Order: sequence, then structure tokens, then C-alpha cells
Amino acid sequence: MELSDRARGAQLEIDKVTDFFGVMGALADQPDALDFTFGNPHEMPLPGLVEALRAQVEPQTVDWFAYKSSVRTAQQAVADGLTAELSMPFEPDDIAMTQGAFGAINLAFHLLADQGDEVIVPVPGWFCYAPMLRAANLVPVGASLEPVSCDLDVEAIARAITPRTRIVVVNSPANPTGRVYTRAQLDDLATVLNEASDRIGRRIWLLSDEPYRRIRFDDIPFTTPAAAYPWTMIDYSYGKVLLAPGQRVGYLALSPSMPDVDKQAFRDAFTPVQLALGWNFPNAIMQYAVPALESVSIDMVEYTARRNRMCGALRDAGYEITRPEGTFYLWGRAPGGDGDAFCMHMAERGVHLMPGSLFDRPEHFRISLTATMETIEKALPMLVDAASFGS
Amino acid sequence: MELSDRARGAQLEIDKVTDFFGVMGALADQPDALDFTFGNPHEMPLPGLVEALRAQVEPQTVDWFAYKSSVRTAQQAVADGLTAELSMPFEPDDIAMTQGAFGAINLAFHLLADQGDEVIVPVPGWFCYAPMLRAANLVPVGASLEPVSCDLDVEAIARAITPRTRIVVVNSPANPTGRVYTRAQLDDLATVLNEASDRIGRRIWLLSDEPYRRIRFDDIPFTTPAAAYPWTMIDYSYGKVLLAPGQRVGYLALSPSMPDVDKQAFRDAFTPVQLALGWNFPNAIMQYAVPALESVSIDMVEYTARRNRMCGALRDAGYEITRPEGTFYLWGRAPGGDGDAFCMHMAERGVHLMPGSLFDRPEHFRISLTATMETIEKALPMLVDAASFGS
Repeated sequence: MELSDRARGAQLEIDKVTDFFGVMGALADQPDALDFTFGNPHEMPLPGLVEALRAQVEPQTVDWFAYKSSVRTAQQAVADGLTAELSMPFEPDDIAMTQGAFGAINLAFHLLADQGDEVIVPVPGWFCYAPMLRAANLVPVGASLEPVSCDLDVEAIARAITPRTRIVVVNSPANPTGRVYTRAQLDDLATVLNEASDRIGRRIWLLSDEPYRRIRFDDIPFTTPAAAYPWTMIDYSYGKVLLAPGQRVGYLALSPSMPDVDKQAFRDAFTPVQLALGWNFPNAIMQYAVPALESVSIDMVEYTARRNRMCGALRDAGYEITRPEGTFYLWGRAPGGDGDAFCMHMAERGVHLMPGSLFDRPEHFRISLTATMETIEKALPMLVDAASFGS
Repeated sequence: MELSDRARGAQLEIDKVTDFFGVMGALADQPDALDFTFGNPHEMPLPGLVEALRAQVEPQTVDWFAYKSSVRTAQQAVADGLTAELSMPFEPDDIAMTQGAFGAINLAFHLLADQGDEVIVPVPGWFCYAPMLRAANLVPVGASLEPVSCDLDVEAIARAITPRTRIVVVNSPANPTGRVYTRAQLDDLATVLNEASDRIGRRIWLLSDEPYRRIRFDDIPFTTPAAAYPWTMIDYSYGKVLLAPGQRVGYLALSPSMPDVDKQAFRDAFTPVQLALGWNFPNAIMQYAVPALESVSIDMVEYTARRNRMCGALRDAGYEITRPEGTFYLWGRAPGGDGDAFCMHMAERGVHLMPGSLFDRPEHFRISLTATMETIEKALPMLVDAASFGS
């Protein structure tokens, strides 16, 4: 085997998703397939996005497409936006512009952790944390969410902490559950992290993975973990709110309440480390577009209607569904309790769902609401029919 | 210190460049500064590039900006181009589309090497290999080029090999020397690498860093190391030939002569490992543009004129200059033998050069020919005046 151990480790962690991609690729030949799998766009790109790109494609200076590290106008727009949104005083220097949230997460992992360090990730949670950690010679350690409510289980995180723990990842609004964590829960977590840091003699950091921060229903309030715990970095991607993950732009932001000495060290390290990670900066056009993109979004009225329709109809049919407060996902328990079997049953009928096994919860399934209302209406009768699957 | 050891290691490796950036930033306030430092554009972007971007910004399908791993039309265009250019049969599956050469090099390092492995890099050579290696927990080992000719010194590479050697980086055409290595030199290197691999009981891989491959003068022939040694990966960036490093697209390509079992393992690993490295794929627009961009280039007639003018005038004035066969750089020995002092002397006169100390060759300096002919003509009298500097 000429492949490195860490490349192989990353590959093994994502195998379940790669295999699922393979199955989906085969099924994609079905012309009338109803696709609820990945959070990918099913409608034409947002006009506000296309207009912003169209404007920035036209060069205005000789250095328009020159090497770009973090572009000041983008950092400023992000800092202003975060300050207004989170009621904390972010400064442009606290913002590292990155290749979407993937790039920001990778940056945080490398800024904070050395080989062999452990990183606590939520279960169920995003299936890319573990392969990213393996590629970075880090060790993913799962901490379960509350089994029924899908709330943060602070005690489970406390139990997962060891002397090698360096980072705890919190994802709110959460993929796949759609839950948004409260200030009280985050304060409890901060207490645990402070006590554990003292006990192990080393600071445990918090990475707040917030790509769905602006995708919330019913004006439910949002608290960033950065407000509860100063040793926090926030990662964000515009790829969700713009539904354009193929044109990548995002950032890593330092909590304004972080101790100054740490903040300065990370500010100084941003550019050299982003260079060393393979020039992990967004393209020029995407950075120039950030001020305009700050106010572009998918239509939350439409997404709320989809959430209400799908969640209501499935619950009426007898499904156990976690009512999402944010994200564009719906998380439920598969009828019969075997998510893989249920998703295969539905796929054979042309309705493609994501099995919970991809999130280490094989009894469950996930629905992406990026599918249109028309697709939802077509799929609902078949989903309602399948409510008694396996029984 | 909360910063990780590897982040700190990467930062230290690039400190000399960061410091130089700082000096340059201050000097940039000089309104009439003549800038020969980085290989950045000094003229408006190429019309062919802008046209290609303009075309691809307009969405044609609902998934235009959806998640994009390597896009097939881009892989096909690259494989076709490489097959014609290098006379070896590349296939689309051998091509991983990446965030420029930075992304391709980072991918190769992670596919091939595990923590503690050694990677041999040329001296003088690109100053980003070492920080990238440190961030990846790898160990840079320098191997000097021939001191006068700047040719590949195969014996120096042989001496640098240890049981931990995993990769040898070859950069042709070479930054900063402008040399293009011959088939005979590469065959000698292949012999050394085969013998050493047998001796240490582990395959030593070759990374051929070829971003300047299409920037050659006088139709000098080019041989890729992939033709001489089957265990070779090629990295490439369109950022040089388009002079647009802020809009990133490049690739990693497997040598067609690589053993099939290895080739298949790397093909299978490309997408999962690129995901695990932080979604290291180019943006959608850049991938769609690749077929059109394959035939767009800076004007080599103009660059040849700049090379001839600058090289000729400096040699006539008494400078020791390595006549470049490729790249857009000119490499010379500083008058007086102190590159830092010479570059500071010139900067005070408004002529900004890059000191050789950034390439671990403190007696030398580098000139970027991305400066215009007008800038060259303005700077030449001052450079000629300084030919006796330090004597």
C-alpha cells in the first residue's frame, strides 16, 4: 500500500458516504427521482448571488486577480455583520477568510491541535469531521446528543474528555437534527470546559461550527457558544444561506472575549498557516462579493413552509420527527427502526433519503428541505404509505 | 502558547517571507516604486481569462453552483492537454482538480507521506515547500542545486536520502533559477531513486512541481520527470500562465507509467482525501472555464523580450545572471555578495527586488519579469549604476 496511513484513515472514515454516493449515482439515472439527500440546490441560483459574481468578474485594477490572502473589505463586512448579529465587538483582524466552512474548520484544527490530540464531535453529526481529523493526524471522539430531544448532552461531553482533549466541536443549528442550543446549555458546557481545562492542565478550545446560523425558523433566538466561552473560534460558510457550495467562501472568527495574548497569536498565525495549508483563502471574486452577499439568502418563508408541510404530514402519519428550529434538514426515526432498509425501500420507489447510518445513528434518516415544495408534495403520499414499513 | 506546534513550525518557516512582506508593504507607499518582487500581475487581466469567467458565471442548470468535486469536463480537458503536451497517455481519472498548485502539492504530500517522513526540496527553491511540510508534520530536507549552473545536482539528492525519505520534489522550469532540466539529468535522478528505494526498502516518490511548464523561452524542449520515473505525480497551476493567482485552479496528475495497482489506489483516494483536506477542489466557475483556459496564456513574445533586455543589460553591466530557460524570473548574484544589503540599497532607490535569503541563498537576488517593459527600462539605469555596489 503506497497510500499514506493518514490518507487511508481519512478514506475509511468517509467510506460510508462514498458508498452512499455510489448508490445515489446509480439511482440518479431514474429520471423522476425525488431527491432529499444532500443539501444541494434544486432550483436556479439566487439572482443576488449571480449579480454579485457578474459584477466582480470585471477587473477594476491590475491586481484584481493577484494573490489574495484575506481581503480587507471582506474581513470588514464579516466583522460588521457578526457584531450586529451576535452583539459582540468583532474586529476585521479577528476574521480569517477561508474556502468555506471546510477551510475554516481545517484551519482551526491546525491552529489548535497537534498530532494525537483528541477532538470531541457530536453524534449524530456531520460526517466530514472525522475524515478531516484523520487527515490531520487527530483523533475524533464522539459524544452523543440527548437521544430523544437531540439537545446538547453536556454530561456526555464531560465523560468524553481525556487529558488529550484539545477541541470540542459544537454545531448549532445542528446538522442533522435541526436543533438550536440555548444559552443555558452553552453556559453549562462552558462550566464543564473550564473545570476540565483546569483539571487536565491545558486549555480545551471550542469550535463553533455555525454554517446554518442564519437559517432558523420562527425567529428562534440564537446564542453563539463564543458568547458563553471565551476560548472559542467560529467557523461559517456562505454556502448554506446562498445554497451555492460550489463557489466557496467562509471564515474563521476569533471570539471577541478571547484573552488578548491568544487573540494576537492567532491573528499573526492566520496568513502563514493558511498559506501552509495549501493557500486556504477564497478566490478573489468571492471575497470581493462578500459585502453584497451578506444580505442575500434563500427564502426563509418558503423554507418554513416546506418544514411545516413535511414535518406536519410525517408526524400526522405517525413518524417520530425532531421538529427543526434551524438548518434545512428534517431528522426522524425510520419506521421499523432500520434506517438503511427504510431508505432503500423508499429509493426503490424513487424517493431518495439519507440513512442515519451516515451519522452513526442507523435507526434514523435525514430529509433535505432543499428539495422543492413540488417534490415534497410528490413524495409525501409515498412517505405516508411507508409509515408502517417494517411493522 | 496556545498555538499548535505545527502551526508555529509553519509560521517560523515562512517568517523570512512575512518579514519581507512587511518591508514591502511599507515601501509600497512609494508612488513610483518599481516592483520586481513577487510574480504578481502588473497589467490588466488577460481578456481570454475574463471572457471565460464571464461566460461561466451565468448559471445553466440548477446544480451550477452545487458541490463540485473534480468536474469531468475539466479532467478531460487536462488529460487531453497533457497527453498532447507530454506525449504520454493521461486519462481523466488520473487528474485531481485542485485549488491551484498549492492545493495539488498539499494533496500529494498527504497522499504519500505520514508524520515524520522526510521530503527533499531544492535549494534555492520555492519558499512555501517548507511551511507546507511543517504544517503537515513532515520534515523538509534541502538538496542544493549545482552552485554555478543551477542544474539538478543528482549527487546532492542522493546524499540527502535517508531511510525516512518519502518524496523528492523536482521543480522544472525552476523558481528562482529559470533552469529547465534535461532528460539525461532526469534519467540519472531516476536511477538514484530506484537504487535508493531498493536500499531503504520503501518507494521514494517524485513530485514534479510544474506550474511554469508552459512558460519557456526559445522553444526549449521540456521533459517531465514523470516520463523518466513512473512513481511520479505532477502538480500544475493555471495561475502562472494566466498570471491570475487569485482565481485558483490547478491539478495533481498521476504519471501514466505508474504501476496500475498504485494508480488505482490514488484514483480512489483523490476525492475522499481532497474532502478531508478541507474541500480542496477548485470553485465551480474555475473548473467550467478550464477547457477555454487551456489555450490562454501571457504573451511569450513579450516575456522573451523582457528576459532578453533585462538579462542582456545586466550581464553587459557586469552582473552574474543565470540566463533563464523558463519561468518569469531572473536569478543573479548580488554585486558585493550580500543580497539583503543590495536589495535594500535598490529599494531605497525605488527598485524592489527579492533578496536571495528568501531562497536560502543570501548572496543572490531574484527579479520578476511580470513587471512591464516600461518598468524595466526605468529601473535599468539604476541597476546598471549599482553593478559595482559593495566593491
